[in-house]
Amino acid sequence: MSVYASLKEEAWAANMEIPARALALYTWGNVSAFDPDRGVFAIKPSGVPYPELTPESMVVVDLDGKIAEGSLNPSSDTPTHRALYREFAPGGIVHTHSTYAVAWAQARCPIPLFGTTHADHIQTPVPCTPYLSREAVEGDYELETGNLIVRTFREGLPGIHGPLDPREVTMVLVGGHGPFAWGSTAAKAVYNAAVLEETARMALLTLQIAPEAASLPEYIVHKHYERKHGSGAYYGQGKG
Amino acid sequence: MSVYASLKEEAWAANMEIPARALALYTWGNVSAFDPDRGVFAIKPSGVPYPELTPESMVVVDLDGKIAEGSLNPSSDTPTHRALYREFAPGGIVHTHSTYAVAWAQARCPIPLFGTTHADHIQTPVPCTPYLSREAVEGDYELETGNLIVRTFREGLPGIHGPLDPREVTMVLVGGHGPFAWGSTAAKAVYNAAVLEETARMALLTLQIAPEAASLPEYIVHKHYERKHGSGAYYGQGKG
Amino acid sequence: MSVYASLKEEAWAANMEIPARALALYTWGNVSAFDPDRGVFAIKPSGVPYPELTPESMVVVDLDGKIAEGSLNPSSDTPTHRALYREFAPGGIVHTHSTYAVAWAQARCPIPLFGTTHADHIQTPVPCTPYLSREAVEGDYELETGNLIVRTFREGLPGIHGPLDPREVTMVLVGGHGPFAWGSTAAKAVYNAAVLEETARMALLTLQIAPEAASLPEYIVHKHYERKHGSGAYYGQGKG
Amino acid sequence: MSVYASLKEEAWAANMEIPARALALYTWGNVSAFDPDRGVFAIKPSGVPYPELTPESMVVVDLDGKIAEGSLNPSSDTPTHRALYREFAPGGIVHTHSTYAVAWAQARCPIPLFGTTHADHIQTPVPCTPYLSREAVEGDYELETGNLIVRTFREGLPGIHGPLDPREVTMVLVGGHGPFAWGSTAAKAVYNAAVLEETARMALLTLQIAPEAASLPEYIVHKHYERKHGSGAYYGQGKG
Repeated sequence: MSVYASLKEEAWAANMEIPARALALYTWGNVSAFDPDRGVFAIKPSGVPYPELTPESMVVVDLDGKIAEGSLNPSSDTPTHRALYREFAPGGIVHTHSTYAVAWAQARCPIPLFGTTHADHIQTPVPCTPYLSREAVEGDYELETGNLIVRTFREGLPGIHGPLDPREVTMVLVGGHGPFAWGSTAAKAVYNAAVLEETARMALLTLQIAPEAASLPEYIVHKHYERKHGSGAYYGQGKG
Repeated sequence: MSVYASLKEEAWAANMEIPARALALYTWGNVSAFDPDRGVFAIKPSGVPYPELTPESMVVVDLDGKIAEGSLNPSSDTPTHRALYREFAPGGIVHTHSTYAVAWAQARCPIPLFGTTHADHIQTPVPCTPYLSREAVEGDYELETGNLIVRTFREGLPGIHGPLDPREVTMVLVGGHGPFAWGSTAAKAVYNAAVLEETARMALLTLQIAPEAASLPEYIVHKHYERKHGSGAYYGQGKG
Repeated sequence: MSVYASLKEEAWAANMEIPARALALYTWGNVSAFDPDRGVFAIKPSGVPYPELTPESMVVVDLDGKIAEGSLNPSSDTPTHRALYREFAPGGIVHTHSTYAVAWAQARCPIPLFGTTHADHIQTPVPCTPYLSREAVEGDYELETGNLIVRTFREGLPGIHGPLDPREVTMVLVGGHGPFAWGSTAAKAVYNAAVLEETARMALLTLQIAPEAASLPEYIVHKHYERKHGSGAYYGQGKG
Repeated sequence: MSVYASLKEEAWAANMEIPARALALYTWGNVSAFDPDRGVFAIKPSGVPYPELTPESMVVVDLDGKIAEGSLNPSSDTPTHRALYREFAPGGIVHTHSTYAVAWAQARCPIPLFGTTHADHIQTPVPCTPYLSREAVEGDYELETGNLIVRTFREGLPGIHGPLDPREVTMVLVGGHGPFAWGSTAAKAVYNAAVLEETARMALLTLQIAPEAASLPEYIVHKHYERKHGSGAYYGQGKG
């Protein structure tokens, strides 16, 4: 039995949440799960329809892109995952083409923080990268996509927030492309991607009702985030 | 067998309607059912996914917040339910994050009364509270959310309606947050939350067609409400 | 066995299409099926949830409103059906609260004829009545709703079309309320209600892309309607 | 056994994807599958509900419109398919009435290329034909619809792109009507129709967020298209 069996199982189960939650069509999107001890992650094979996926079909890759196990090509977005694991060190990463998140990415707008549904998860607007440069696209495109996300986090949200902490801000839009999200596990990464999609939809509808809608006051943002994620968090059953 | 068994069963069944009617994702939202004889309500435990809920897992709480039965933490919104039971005395209360109702709450706009779908249930726009103050948020936040709803009902809708009667107006938006609804039972509370979501969606679409859409004339509002809820009501089979 | 058994079966089957096609929530909406030989129609009982309906629970009513068979109260909209059967003589009638059709009704706008999906079914915008007068609402409200529809058809669409023929225009919006549709059978009435909802949605989205979108030229409207409904119709298998 | 059995099976399976992916209601839409050796295609019979379709019910037609096998009338859109097979020579063709694609067709706007979801499939806006002329509509309407699509491809997108290559641009909107798509197989044609619908929806939402949204830079468009379809394509498992 593979030493990566449980990692591949985790990656497979999280990938299956993409069609279950309607976060992408056909073969689009991909999830990976990271094993920090072995320095590898298991990721969806490229272009395989979700109903055909099995835990065994997951591809195990190290942070240099070398395949540790698996007979299929890994997701073409694998280098983006590598860049994010190196810099942000999450337990799982997901890329989707969910409809409303893509719309904000195509509009190249950060998603404003209008309410507590958003603030329960992150305390800033959802950041959006600029387009990749021609050089980046014509170079190692998918790796540069990861680098651009990292750079966007270092720069923060001009006029709103300094550098972003990827342990707190667990989602991003790549301008003209779509969303990436991450978390302490692959399952939590997909949870964050689903939250992002719902937040994106709510924000668009909010603007349709009130084009000048105000951002949620900082003291409410802080309260909601802290009651779920702070040191004195009291949401849930204390299991984290 | 618990003396609260039927109350917990009622609360559980009503909670399961939240995912069944797509009124919230994951663990979001919560329903409670009240027992006026014992002065307690049964409510969803905090942060538990709906598919894992059982009648036994419901938490029974009294109006001072003391747990009468249950080993799990009750919903973090429990103090809001307490405040509403004390002041409005319904048989059941629900909080959701349904998409369109949240959008109106984030826009901090009452939902205009455009048609009979709305008037079949309440005779005024759906009220929307202002943001909670910094003091309220930094104090007993969830209890203050309930107090803000109560205050909003006492103040009514400026220029439209005086104090609101919570036996007639069974739903509210908390500004920047989302909807609460209630009813004579927990099941009817969830029914009202589903009506609110559909009404919120229809109102947004109405504004997209006609940004200057008129409110339904008062004589039609009154007729529709009375044929369902008045002393001479003739909708249904006379069972209430 | 009831002489109305097959009529009630037809009405029941058509009513069950309302939740199946998501044309209304809970107990909302109603369908009736007409028997021209006996001068009666079978209609949904008032306020009963769809999953509880049976063919036996349908109520048989004559054109004067007298109950010919059934122990439950018929739909509160029964007098509207009576008025439409008297004047328009269809084989079946349906009232829904489908979301987009209600939005147009609340905006009190006829639905413009933008494309062939619409023209495959009717050759004019979907008409929309004005609000009922105070006198009509305080009188025999539901019967007056039917009378208002009939009057709207006699008046036609000002500046666009003269009197409307209910054998060709099989759907209408009641201003501030919602849609009614009809057809040669109860099943075809529900088909028309589903077409109306889809047409309403497509028209709203068309306006969001192009607020000045043009109406489909009359020669295309005519062609599409005639290929399905004209004397030389060639759509389908010649079964009508 | 029919020599067309596998062709009819392919056409049937692809037709069943139309309701499965919600690309049309009731009997609307149609798919055909082409056999280049025999010069015939199998297509949906006209006006038959999808649940009643069987592989045997597919109608086999040659490029002159002569029925080679089948007892039912072929789709009324069969001459459009004939014109497209003659000029574009794909392996399969589909026509749907999917909601967002129809909205763009009714607005008579090409769908702008805002993001990589779109660029993964075609490198230009989705073209939209003008209305057919009165002469074309009153002549051989469905054949002229095909001819109009062919002419639109020859003319290209004014100010944006010269003549369009139907091997690369596999989808089109017929102004005031709706979408056609095609591919190397009937299944791939339906895949392209589903991509078109999702792209249409994302583009509309993008404009709602940013009415002045920019087109994706050409170097990103090219990269995304080539990584899936170019000579050095590296998406998928190398099976094409």
